[in-house]
Amino acid sequence: MKKQLGAKNCLYPLPTVLVGAQVNGKPNFITMAHVGIVDPGSVSMSMSKSHYTNQGIKENGTFSVNIPGTKLMKETDYCGLVSGKKEDKAKMFKVFYGALKTAPLIEECPINMECELTHTFDFESHDIFVGKVVETYSDEEVLDSGVVNFAKVDPLLFVMNDRGYWSLGRKLGSAWSVGMELKRKKVPP
Amino acid sequence: MKKQLGAKNCLYPLPTVLVGAQVNGKPNFITMAHVGIVDPGSVSMSMSKSHYTNQGIKENGTFSVNIPGTKLMKETDYCGLVSGKKEDKAKMFKVFYGALKTAPLIEECPINMECELTHTFDFESHDIFVGKVVETYSDEEVLDSGVVNFAKVDPLLFVMNDRGYWSLGRKLGSAWSVGMELKRKKVPP
Repeated sequence: MKKQLGAKNCLYPLPTVLVGAQVNGKPNFITMAHVGIVDPGSVSMSMSKSHYTNQGIKENGTFSVNIPGTKLMKETDYCGLVSGKKEDKAKMFKVFYGALKTAPLIEECPINMECELTHTFDFESHDIFVGKVVETYSDEEVLDSGVVNFAKVDPLLFVMNDRGYWSLGRKLGSAWSVGMELKRKKVPP
Repeated sequence: MKKQLGAKNCLYPLPTVLVGAQVNGKPNFITMAHVGIVDPGSVSMSMSKSHYTNQGIKENGTFSVNIPGTKLMKETDYCGLVSGKKEDKAKMFKVFYGALKTAPLIEECPINMECELTHTFDFESHDIFVGKVVETYSDEEVLDSGVVNFAKVDPLLFVMNDRGYWSLGRKLGSAWSVGMELKRKKVPP
């Protein structure tokens, strides 16, 4: 029996990331989980217009997406609790720069993506920043033969419904593969 | 030491969903994982223009987002392997309709959202459909005091890097809470 919950967004979990931008000449980071992929090479970040980081993204046309492991849970949550207007959050991390020069990256995050802003969609209370990934950095320890192993990344997943941070489980199967059995049968069960 | 991977999208895992639409008068479902949240009440689905389902979304201005549990992994993968042009994928499921009348929902998925199309962004090879969630349906068994427990939903997460389906792990902490300790210290470590 189905229960109606009203208009409740349940598109979770989503990956919790630290979005980086250069704001007033200094690196700043903010926690985001209302993110997505809008085409295979581009990501979207839905950021409340009240955030300090937004102006840096607009000014530079660049931002970074840093994927923290679960061991950075406290620092990641902290970056969502305080504004860069008041605190220098970047001093918690070793910051480095790559090809884009204005997208600060976090050494302690196992995966970092530099993004070039391609679209800004003006929603009522949020700026939707779409960025094309131009370069990706990874800790060697999370790679298996050059491919990112997300069990090793150990990403911090977010669920709004319980306001929880969750871990990733285990790999269950391969896409475009496990369903072949049903395709071969032609008549699905 | 960081390794450069080139322009590699690593914004994973993302939830694997079955997007439903009424196409030529019949329900159809397609597997999607390039999804996101664009504002708290809206979701985005990045769908290759070649897909059969896109025309139904455009015609009706509605779509559904059905969240399968891991036990539907084969059926979910199958819906990404075959086109609704050739196969009636809906016959695998018990289909029901809600408030919008034209957004088919899958009984076997523990969570279903009906969405009203609010924006279509025309990307090079993809339509980005943005929908406002207007009603959500849930199996009673996945609710704890009316709140969705994602451990019970047991969602199927997708990672493009290894083309893998993954499970969700466990809840580690609460957002806007676990970082308070660092905020109280004022000077972060």
